[in-house]
Amino acid sequence: MSEGNKKQRTTVSIYGQQYTIVGKESSSHVVRVAEYVDHKMREIKNSNPYLDTTKLAVLTSINLVDEHLKLLEKLKEYENEENEKDR
Amino acid sequence: MSEGNKKQRTTVSIYGQQYTIVGKESSSHVVRVAEYVDHKMREIKNSNPYLDTTKLAVLTSINLVDEHLKLLEKLKEYENEENEKDR
Repeated sequence: MSEGNKKQRTTVSIYGQQYTIVGKESSSHVVRVAEYVDHKMREIKNSNPYLDTTKLAVLTSINLVDEHLKLLEKLKEYENEENEKDR
Repeated sequence: MSEGNKKQRTTVSIYGQQYTIVGKESSSHVVRVAEYVDHKMREIKNSNPYLDTTKLAVLTSINLVDEHLKLLEKLKEYENEENEKDR
């Protein structure tokens, strides 16, 4: 997803700031994604109250990638199990 | 992961800014995560050159959550297939 092209446009509010998200995804998907980011930012701000918004947003990305890589590993395990069964 | 507690401390550079990440994860994992975030931020900056760093970091989070939710759906499909087989 990116900001400021053609296709479906959805405006969301994250951490008090408006973002217009453009992409093929439905507005309901974009709203769900935005709510997740907003929730994560507030959660991390609670544990790190002195962070400025930029550092908070980067730290949010770090946490999201951490979750993402762990999920990828879990998915790989599934795929390996599948391959084992197919032999 | 969070910034500024006890446990393992790893300092990484993301988009020209230093972050000290604290958590149970290995330094190599943290470096890998940081590289992913840095790469994503630069990729999104290329498509959206007028974004300030805060908006860029939030937009990076949005893209990461989008990828994450899609991966979660894929994982759910695997789990459903597994459940079907077990019947």
